[in-house]
Amino acid sequence: MAEAALARLRAVLTEVDDLQRAAAVLSWDRQTYMPPAGGAGRGEQLATLQRLAHARFTSPEVGELLEGLRDWAGAQPYDSFEASLVRVTRRDYDLMTKLPGELVAELARAEAAAFDAWHAGRSERAWQPFLAPFAHLVGLCRQAADHIGWQDSPFDALLRSHEPGMTYARLDQLFTRLKEVLVPLTHAVAARADRVSDAVLQQPYDEARQWTLTLQAVAVVGFDATERGRQDRSVHPFTTSFCSEDVRITTRLDPSHLGHGLFASLHEAGHGLYEQGIPAALWRTPLGVGASGGVHESQSRLWENVIGRSRGFWTFFLPRAAALFPDQLGGTDVEAMYRAVNRAGPSFIRVEADEVTYNLHIILRCELEQALLRGDLAPDDVPGAWAEKMRAYLGLTPPDDLVGALQDVHWTGGPTAGFAGYTLGNVMSLQLYERAMADHPGIPDAVQAGNTEELRTWMRDHVHSYGSKLTPEELLQQATGRGLDPEPYLRYIQGKYAEIYDL
Amino acid sequence: MAEAALARLRAVLTEVDDLQRAAAVLSWDRQTYMPPAGGAGRGEQLATLQRLAHARFTSPEVGELLEGLRDWAGAQPYDSFEASLVRVTRRDYDLMTKLPGELVAELARAEAAAFDAWHAGRSERAWQPFLAPFAHLVGLCRQAADHIGWQDSPFDALLRSHEPGMTYARLDQLFTRLKEVLVPLTHAVAARADRVSDAVLQQPYDEARQWTLTLQAVAVVGFDATERGRQDRSVHPFTTSFCSEDVRITTRLDPSHLGHGLFASLHEAGHGLYEQGIPAALWRTPLGVGASGGVHESQSRLWENVIGRSRGFWTFFLPRAAALFPDQLGGTDVEAMYRAVNRAGPSFIRVEADEVTYNLHIILRCELEQALLRGDLAPDDVPGAWAEKMRAYLGLTPPDDLVGALQDVHWTGGPTAGFAGYTLGNVMSLQLYERAMADHPGIPDAVQAGNTEELRTWMRDHVHSYGSKLTPEELLQQATGRGLDPEPYLRYIQGKYAEIYDL
Repeated sequence: MAEAALARLRAVLTEVDDLQRAAAVLSWDRQTYMPPAGGAGRGEQLATLQRLAHARFTSPEVGELLEGLRDWAGAQPYDSFEASLVRVTRRDYDLMTKLPGELVAELARAEAAAFDAWHAGRSERAWQPFLAPFAHLVGLCRQAADHIGWQDSPFDALLRSHEPGMTYARLDQLFTRLKEVLVPLTHAVAARADRVSDAVLQQPYDEARQWTLTLQAVAVVGFDATERGRQDRSVHPFTTSFCSEDVRITTRLDPSHLGHGLFASLHEAGHGLYEQGIPAALWRTPLGVGASGGVHESQSRLWENVIGRSRGFWTFFLPRAAALFPDQLGGTDVEAMYRAVNRAGPSFIRVEADEVTYNLHIILRCELEQALLRGDLAPDDVPGAWAEKMRAYLGLTPPDDLVGALQDVHWTGGPTAGFAGYTLGNVMSLQLYERAMADHPGIPDAVQAGNTEELRTWMRDHVHSYGSKLTPEELLQQATGRGLDPEPYLRYIQGKYAEIYDL
Repeated sequence: MAEAALARLRAVLTEVDDLQRAAAVLSWDRQTYMPPAGGAGRGEQLATLQRLAHARFTSPEVGELLEGLRDWAGAQPYDSFEASLVRVTRRDYDLMTKLPGELVAELARAEAAAFDAWHAGRSERAWQPFLAPFAHLVGLCRQAADHIGWQDSPFDALLRSHEPGMTYARLDQLFTRLKEVLVPLTHAVAARADRVSDAVLQQPYDEARQWTLTLQAVAVVGFDATERGRQDRSVHPFTTSFCSEDVRITTRLDPSHLGHGLFASLHEAGHGLYEQGIPAALWRTPLGVGASGGVHESQSRLWENVIGRSRGFWTFFLPRAAALFPDQLGGTDVEAMYRAVNRAGPSFIRVEADEVTYNLHIILRCELEQALLRGDLAPDDVPGAWAEKMRAYLGLTPPDDLVGALQDVHWTGGPTAGFAGYTLGNVMSLQLYERAMADHPGIPDAVQAGNTEELRTWMRDHVHSYGSKLTPEELLQQATGRGLDPEPYLRYIQGKYAEIYDL
C-alpha cells in the first residue's frame, strides 16, 4: 500500500519537477540568449509551465497521498529518502495550498504594476510614483501572511518559504548582535578609508581575457563548467540548475573593473557547486534543491569572500591573473592585491557593498519589512525610515530614493521577507568554514596551492548531499554541533579588517 | 455557444502550443549549449513536456469541441481564422487519435533501440546489426498506417502527417518525370566533371570570419538574427521557432571549406524567414506553423540554391566575402565563384549532394520505403536494392552500407515517408519563384544589388502569411494558379547546368 502510494506521489512530483526545470531552461535562455522581441511569447510560455506545475503540485490527490503516507513515513529514519520526501513535500504543499488562487493571481498582477511604477520612480529618483503600488503589495503580503498563519509577526509566515524554521524574533537577536559589532567597525573603517586602495582593480581589463580568468577561477573552486555545467553572460549574474548534471552560472564583465566579473563568477560558482553536489537520487523530487536561500548563500559567500578574498587564494591566483594581464597586474604583489579586493567602507548600494557593511544593508531592509508588515510603518514613511537607518548604521544620508529605497528590484514583489537569506548565508558561511577547518586544518595551505578539494568535499558531505532533507537549523546542528551562531562570522570580520585597516 | 466553444478550444490549444514550444527551447538548448552530462535529464524533461502536450491535444474534450464547432466553422469563409482553425485542428486530431497509445510507446522504444543498432551498424559499415530493429520498425510503421487507414498504399497513411493531401501515386508520377530529366543530366554532368572546379572553396577559412560572413548572408536574405531571431552553432544545422518573434537558426562551420557553413546558414535562414513571416494572430494555435515539410523546404531551398547559388547573389556578395577573405578570394571573379558553388556530379551521400543529383537520392529512399511498407521489399534486401538504384540513377556502386543505406539517421524511426518533403520542396521552390518573377520581373536585378525585399515580400504574402491554413496543393493553386508542377524546376536545372557544363 505505502509503496504504491509513494510511487504514485513520486510520479506526480517528477512531472512537477520536469515542468519547473523546463521553466528554468526557458528563464535561463531569456536572460542569456533570447532575442529582444521574444519576451512576450516567452512570458506566456513560462506562465503556462508554472501554472501547470502549481496546479499539479497543489492538487487534492497530492494531499491525499501525503495524508495516507504520513504514519508510514514517520516510522522511517528521519533523514531517509522516504521520510524526508513526505515531510518536505507536506511542508511545501501546506504552504502552497494555503494561498487562495485569487490572491496569487492578484499578487502577480500587483507585481507587474509595481514593476512599471518602480521604473517610473527610478527615472524620477523619487518614491512617490512607486508608493501606491507598493502600499497595495504590502496589503496583499499581509493577507498572504494571514492565510499562511502566524503567531508573533506576519513576517514569520512569509519567511517560511525562504527559511524553514526561522522566525523574525530569532533574526532580531541575530541582527542585534551583528549591529553591535558591525556598526562601530563600519565607522572605524570609514575613518581610515585612505589605508586601502583598489586602484589596481580599476583599470581597463580586456573582456575576452577576463572571461578566460573567470573560467580559471571557477575551475579552481571546482565548479564543472565543461561536462556538468556552463558559464554564460547575463545582465544580472545568477545560477540555475536543470538537474545536478546540468548547472548553469552566469557572470557579467566590466571592462574597467577586474573585480565585478571575477567575484560574480566565484559567487555563482559557489551556488553552482551546491547544485552539482546534490545527489542524483534526490533529483526530480522536492528534495533535489538547496535547504534554503540562506544555506545556498552560505555556499556562494564562502567561495566569493571567505576563499576568493583570502590571502591564500591570491597567492595561488595572482600569477595566473598577471599572466593574462601583465600590464595591469605585473607589478602588483599578493599583499597589495589582497588589500585591494578587501577594500571596505560605507556606501549607498547594497549590491556594491563589502563584507563589513553588506549585512547592515540587509538588516535595514528586514527591519523595515517587519515594521511594514506589522503596520508599524506606513508605506509613505519608507524613505524617511530608510534614511534614518542609513545614518545610524552606515553614517550616510541618501541624496535621493534612487540610491535609497528604490535600489532593489525585490520590493516590486512587496515585503516578502526574502532579504534575510543574504545575512543568514554570510553568518552560516563562517560557521561551516570554521568547522571544516577544525576537521581539516590543512585547508588554508591547500587553498594557497590551488587545491580546494578538501573544503569542497567537506561542504558536499555536510551540506550539498542532503538536498533539502534538513532544515537550515538541522543542517547546522548536524554539521557543526550547534544551531545558528554569529560568533564565527564576527571573529572572522573583526580579525580580518582590524588587520587590514590597522584598527 | 460557438464563441464559447471556440474560446475553450483556443485555451486548450494555447496550452498545447506553449508546452510544445517549451519543448522546442529545451531541444534547441540540447543541440547548442547543453553540457554533455545534461542529456539524460533533458531527455526526461522533454518526454514529460511531449507527453503532457499529446495528452492534452488528444483529450476527448478537444474531440467534442471540434465536433460541436464543425457546422458553425464550416459556414465561415474557407481561409478565415475560425474555419481554418477548426479544419486543421480536426485533421491533426484525427491523425493523432488514431494511433493507440501502446503503439506510440512501442514506436518510441523501437526507435531508441534502432538508434543504438544504427550506430553499431555504422561502426561495422554493415547493414546486419541494424536489420532486426529496422525490420521491427517496418512492422510497426505498417501497423501505424493500418490504424490511420489507407487505400492504395500504407505509405499514403504515413505521408499524411508530413504532406497533407499528397499520395504516393502522385509522388510516383512526379518522380518518373524528374528521373526522365535528371538521370541523363547526372550522367552528362559526370562525363564532364573536369569542366568545373570548386578548389576555391576548399581552402583554409578562419571560423570567426566565416561566422561574420554567414551573418552577412542571412542579413542579405532578410532573416532577422538580431531582434527577432538568432544564429548559433550546432553539429547538425536546424531551425526552430518559439514564436514568430523568436526564431533560431543554427549553422556549422568547416575550417577547410567555405561552402558548408555559408549554404547551411542560407538554407536555415530560408526556414527562419518562413517562421518569422507567420502572423502573430496565428501564434499559439495549430495554424502557427508551416503548411508542410515540403513547403518549408521550398523556402530553404529557394534561398540556399535558387538565390544563394545564383550569379546575381554572387555579384553582390563576392566583394563582401573577399573583404573578409582577401587571400582566398581576392583573385576570384564572379563567374569562377558561380561555377564553384554550382559544381555537380554523382556522389554517395545525400546531404552532400548538389542540385542535379539531390532529388535522385530522395527518390531512391521513397521508392524503397514504399516497397518496404507494401511488403514488396524485405528489410534484409535493402542494401541490394539500394545499390541497384544507385547504379541506375547515379551510376555509382556503394562500397559499403555506411555510405549506403546506413547514411541517414531518419531510418532509425523506420520508413516514415518523411523524405518526400525534400524533393517536393525543391520542385515547389521553382514553381513559386517562377511566379514571383512573373509578378516582379525586377527580382533578379534587385538580388544583384543585394536587395531581396521584393522576393521575400512575395513569399510572405503568398506562403508565410497563411501559416498552415492551406494544404500545400491549395497554397500552390492560390499562389501560382496551378497544382504541383515539376516543369519550372526542370527548366531551371536544365538551363542552369547545360550552361555551366556546356552540354
